[in-house]
Amino acid sequence: MKINGTAYRSVWRDPADSRLVHIFDQTKLPWSLDILDLREMEQVAHAIRTMQVRGAPLIGAVAAYGLAFALQSDAGDEGLARAAAYLVETRPTAINLRWAIERMAARLAPLAPAARVAAAYEEADAICDEDVRVNASIGRHGLDLIRTLWAERAEGQERLNILTHCNAGWIATVDWGTALAPIYMAHDSGIPVHVWVDETRPRNQGALLTAWELGAHGVPHTLIADNAGGHLMQHGEVDLVIVGTDRVTRGGDVANKIGTYLKALAARDNGVPFWVALPSSTIDWRVTDGVRDIPIEERAAEEVTHVSGLDEHGRPARVRVTPAGTTGANPAFDVTPARLVSGLLTERGPCEASAEGLRALFPDLDTTLLHARS
Amino acid sequence: MKINGTAYRSVWRDPADSRLVHIFDQTKLPWSLDILDLREMEQVAHAIRTMQVRGAPLIGAVAAYGLAFALQSDAGDEGLARAAAYLVETRPTAINLRWAIERMAARLAPLAPAARVAAAYEEADAICDEDVRVNASIGRHGLDLIRTLWAERAEGQERLNILTHCNAGWIATVDWGTALAPIYMAHDSGIPVHVWVDETRPRNQGALLTAWELGAHGVPHTLIADNAGGHLMQHGEVDLVIVGTDRVTRGGDVANKIGTYLKALAARDNGVPFWVALPSSTIDWRVTDGVRDIPIEERAAEEVTHVSGLDEHGRPARVRVTPAGTTGANPAFDVTPARLVSGLLTERGPCEASAEGLRALFPDLDTTLLHARS
Repeated sequence: MKINGTAYRSVWRDPADSRLVHIFDQTKLPWSLDILDLREMEQVAHAIRTMQVRGAPLIGAVAAYGLAFALQSDAGDEGLARAAAYLVETRPTAINLRWAIERMAARLAPLAPAARVAAAYEEADAICDEDVRVNASIGRHGLDLIRTLWAERAEGQERLNILTHCNAGWIATVDWGTALAPIYMAHDSGIPVHVWVDETRPRNQGALLTAWELGAHGVPHTLIADNAGGHLMQHGEVDLVIVGTDRVTRGGDVANKIGTYLKALAARDNGVPFWVALPSSTIDWRVTDGVRDIPIEERAAEEVTHVSGLDEHGRPARVRVTPAGTTGANPAFDVTPARLVSGLLTERGPCEASAEGLRALFPDLDTTLLHARS
Repeated sequence: MKINGTAYRSVWRDPADSRLVHIFDQTKLPWSLDILDLREMEQVAHAIRTMQVRGAPLIGAVAAYGLAFALQSDAGDEGLARAAAYLVETRPTAINLRWAIERMAARLAPLAPAARVAAAYEEADAICDEDVRVNASIGRHGLDLIRTLWAERAEGQERLNILTHCNAGWIATVDWGTALAPIYMAHDSGIPVHVWVDETRPRNQGALLTAWELGAHGVPHTLIADNAGGHLMQHGEVDLVIVGTDRVTRGGDVANKIGTYLKALAARDNGVPFWVALPSSTIDWRVTDGVRDIPIEERAAEEVTHVSGLDEHGRPARVRVTPAGTTGANPAFDVTPARLVSGLLTERGPCEASAEGLRALFPDLDTTLLHARS
């Protein structure tokens, strides 16, 4: 996608120094476009933990380069295993991270250590390129969904209102985004989409990233408090909800940014379609019951007690919104049960959020039996 | 209630100048305890509109004094009618405002203009005293509810977890609060309550006021993002939800701070009791369908795009959380349908959130036929 007319991906290798990888520091967006240099695994782990890089698909891609960095100092079997285990632990909820690292390990383990570094960069590149293709495909399938919905609604209303939570845009992936890919394509094809952007407390990814992305691309949008979506749905102001996800169970339960579950409940209560966009790398075939079995990251209370933005002089600043001594709790994700999900939007098309729906679309990926045996 | 050991109400007449009325500037809480002087109706209207004074019961009480101020310059029938109409318009959703003004007008209209000012102050005082008695009664009935719940849960857990949204504490009323009155009484009677305090974007009344109130009284509490409540309920971390309300329809629909509806949906989905505490002055006997007929105030977008707090030096500051040019929408309330409400907690005890439940408890207050005729 483009920033001020220049095409970017969210992660890329330096053209002059091919071992160097760049990302945007997403903790600085949208206030400044700081491009970070990544050369060492520890930098990657730090970037993931502090959310300089975020978004399940992008975390996976960047972690893949992190493994390549680690192999430069120790390409032996033990070094590979240690680095893989270390990177997988940087964030607990997103499954793409484990998927990317397992894919890297499967490709690299059979090779002689001397061949591993070059192969690791190649494989990380392949993961990135594949992410872009996959997201474009999600976008096209989502465009079909939006086009159908618009054909039904166009007569009675001037615009198609889509609500999204958090940021599942191009900056959360290598390019295109997951939930936002269909929206970009619908806008580009002339469908008058308007996006309700959930602020997404406590980290404000909606206000900071989704609003910025949509604005840069010219997609009409309005920021709302996370509290407002139910009211808008009650009054017919939401035609469709699309969100991304950090992990989908084999049964179709959806882990996503905290608060997603509340929007799914409101969508169900008001007959609003609730769709989840995901690359198949987000499916965790080993887990069925998401509420019970997906680990939910608990982040620092300071993310709740403090808010970052720009002060009156336009300088980055942070304010505390609670009395001294107030503590906070900060679960970063929640799980939306499959029963509340209208459908999953994947690179192979839409499917029901159920074991049957997923298995029918991805018979080749269901590795449950394999893992059960191992 | 007490602030640093001194007992306060949220509105009071000056002991030396009985025509002067004081309130706390709630836009400055909890950072500073600024006490405002109110002498003119326009000051009251400004205080209500800018939320220097807020909370449905307190708005009604302060507006009553506003009417007394207005009568000082024009106590004629026309002056009374004009001031009453003006004050009722200051905020559209809270019904206590209209209730208080109608009660004042009913008391004052039959009097000779010369007698109206003194009677207005008396009646406003009576509204305040009654609010305190009513809220204490709500608190006692709510304590019964909490005690019963704790008797069921005490064996399996160390504390009783109550979630609340926005601020329905003593600072939202003349004293005691509505939703928080039972919590204060439960805490004082030795029940180990712990409160999950919803931040309550965009104005952060939870973070700023409820956390402050509970902290000052020593009630254990934890601030959470508005997004977190559903997740906590899914994991058994919420035993009870209690909220206040700005207007309850004769059918039991509940208008309250934006986001309340989402918590009610989550409570229903997880079998968590969802109670609404209210004085009977909050019931709008003229309205049945809350989603259709309660006017929802749309406030400034700036409340969503900016966040206030203290900067790193402890000074009040405001940050913008969105890119320049991002606009916001800001509906201030939503309506929770009666079907999602476990019960209403009133000064006469608990009742079902339904026309039958309310009518049985308040047969003397249902003025529908009267109004239908007028």
